[in-house]
Amino acid sequence: MSQTLSGAAVVAHGGGPTQVINASLAGVIEERRRCPEITALYGARHGIVGVLADDFLDLDQQDAELVARIARTPGSALGSCRRKVTSADFERILAVFRAHNVRYFFYNGGNDSMDTALRMARLAAETGYELRVIGIPKTIDNDLAETDHCPGYGSAARFIACALRDIGADIRELPARVTVVEVMGRNAGWLVAATALARQEAEDAPHLIYVPEHPISAEQFLADVDAVYRRLGQAVIAVCEGQTDDKGEPFGADMVAADGFQHRLTGNLAHVLAQLINKRLKLRARSEKPGLLGRSSMAFLSETDYQEALMCGREAVRAAVAGFTDVMVTLVREPGESYRAATGLAPLEKVANAERRLPLGWVHPSGHDVMPEFLGYAAPLAGEIQPRPRLRQVSVPASLATP
Amino acid sequence: MSQTLSGAAVVAHGGGPTQVINASLAGVIEERRRCPEITALYGARHGIVGVLADDFLDLDQQDAELVARIARTPGSALGSCRRKVTSADFERILAVFRAHNVRYFFYNGGNDSMDTALRMARLAAETGYELRVIGIPKTIDNDLAETDHCPGYGSAARFIACALRDIGADIRELPARVTVVEVMGRNAGWLVAATALARQEAEDAPHLIYVPEHPISAEQFLADVDAVYRRLGQAVIAVCEGQTDDKGEPFGADMVAADGFQHRLTGNLAHVLAQLINKRLKLRARSEKPGLLGRSSMAFLSETDYQEALMCGREAVRAAVAGFTDVMVTLVREPGESYRAATGLAPLEKVANAERRLPLGWVHPSGHDVMPEFLGYAAPLAGEIQPRPRLRQVSVPASLATP
Repeated sequence: MSQTLSGAAVVAHGGGPTQVINASLAGVIEERRRCPEITALYGARHGIVGVLADDFLDLDQQDAELVARIARTPGSALGSCRRKVTSADFERILAVFRAHNVRYFFYNGGNDSMDTALRMARLAAETGYELRVIGIPKTIDNDLAETDHCPGYGSAARFIACALRDIGADIRELPARVTVVEVMGRNAGWLVAATALARQEAEDAPHLIYVPEHPISAEQFLADVDAVYRRLGQAVIAVCEGQTDDKGEPFGADMVAADGFQHRLTGNLAHVLAQLINKRLKLRARSEKPGLLGRSSMAFLSETDYQEALMCGREAVRAAVAGFTDVMVTLVREPGESYRAATGLAPLEKVANAERRLPLGWVHPSGHDVMPEFLGYAAPLAGEIQPRPRLRQVSVPASLATP
Repeated sequence: MSQTLSGAAVVAHGGGPTQVINASLAGVIEERRRCPEITALYGARHGIVGVLADDFLDLDQQDAELVARIARTPGSALGSCRRKVTSADFERILAVFRAHNVRYFFYNGGNDSMDTALRMARLAAETGYELRVIGIPKTIDNDLAETDHCPGYGSAARFIACALRDIGADIRELPARVTVVEVMGRNAGWLVAATALARQEAEDAPHLIYVPEHPISAEQFLADVDAVYRRLGQAVIAVCEGQTDDKGEPFGADMVAADGFQHRLTGNLAHVLAQLINKRLKLRARSEKPGLLGRSSMAFLSETDYQEALMCGREAVRAAVAGFTDVMVTLVREPGESYRAATGLAPLEKVANAERRLPLGWVHPSGHDVMPEFLGYAAPLAGEIQPRPRLRQVSVPASLATP
């Protein structure tokens, strides 16, 4: 550890962007200025695709003020990709790195990207090419192992909590309705669980929250919706795109078969569930799918998430220069009353391809809500959700007998 | 005109809420405090349904500071409804008004609501009951006649322009994709046209914009998508929920039939179009439907829209007290370099059930874009759309021959 290694550095993005992906990039760019052993900083255009194509942006030619502005905007400033990297690709990457004397590789991504980083590190080690590989976590799904949470999650949680607050308020004052909102998160319930942050009062939306960690039968789902509707005269339901039923099938698949629907469930779950509610419970139901806005909406940056993403970028450079390799930067929640997090490091091999799901202890035994412990976990990451003021409910005495 | 009429006032919401519906309510509540001839101000709970049920909130019992906060939040603070009002309903409303000595009726809504207001005014006149009826415009669709634009439109335009900017940036840096975004607006293209405000540079999203005022064949649509994709390697398409094809059928209906899709188009247009693009052009396509967030998202309030909605509420009270009736408050754009609007009044009978669509002169002859004149119209209503900074595109010289 800690011996000086002189050479260029490459930073690359993998997978879908987040609201704070460019904050981590800014952290790398900033910190690199303090490290003379890093002789140049290259940004791979479109992630690994750019590395393979020898296509790099010169990140030392960027104005600090511009970088600071870009840091607060979502969408990958470098470009990204979803390429599955082959053995031949790894060889090519190594050749490109050798040609540019790249000795530092910062890879900002999720589970797949951490696997790519690990394999790259191993190939370099096998061939005796000294390369320090550091993963920077990034995913709105919050499903990376070894870290308290992931940069990107807090802002996406903020977006979806505000969305449920706003959709809930829109619908609350309209006639009886059922609305199903589909939330991202793949197989992990972290994001859909965050919709609970939308509630200010007990009967606020969402009235039902389903997480994929707790599979549920479609019949139970319909019974839950029916019960809420009978009690409140409406129901707002948050469901994760990756929800499964008690047979491990996509949520509602059996109902779809039974009812002869032709729809593909993927990419359309909320719509299908709304139709099922309509058909089986005879209730007016519609669906909402905020979709890509959940990870790209500039207006919902969580300040905590932003600061931590920046911190992870900086820490990646510091760790590499200090001699670390084959690790991912993590966020470690510090004990105490008020929220604080520091960075840590975890071996890439513990992170690569692992998937961290919502602890079952944070799912309400009913299977359609989250426990207060989860709210304590998620609230500081999303930041304060501005409450909606309501009129004082002072009624005018009726002047006529009811018709 | 102008004789003093002493009595209570009722304010009610009709139809779906907007981001600034409560600003107009706040304008009514504020201005009423200056009018002693209005003896009380009642808010109908859930619109006409509340009037029929003799269910009113006492709006004189609301704290001014609370009202000012509510003014900036979307979702109807009073509650709304979509009830078709029957003849028996009108009689009942009149009975309730008589019993409370209601002499002022402020109805905040769209075309249907203005028709209801007009019929209410006529019934009162026929039966010799003195009632002043004033419409306050409210619709994100911007399709009310006799007004330059409608409160609610500016904020919804702001939302959808920011959404296209953010979705565009998210997708721009990912591999080749086609994305279809479905935009509200019913049969009017005002909102989908506002997606053009998202563009900062020539090739920014949206690359294709379709408005229902310009019907287009599905074959032409596919040809347009194909051309954009060939040029840019991607395509972001904005289409109005009410788009029709050259036969007057819902957009894509003929393609759906030809391809044997079972989907209902309504409520699912973007999804169906993405599948058609996938099937016919063999391109990876997905869909986005921001849905209710377009009219309910607290974060996208346009300051101009807010101020004008407030102004319309105030003007309604002033006009009523001055003796006007059977009119709707309008917004009149003042001539000159910088944007300014004043209020005016238009007869309800010219507004009721009329639908004002996007002028065809503001649609680009290609049928898939808008003209600069539209941007000049819409930009001040939506307010400044924060641009996305981009990295300087300084490339690192390649060190290897391309593989």
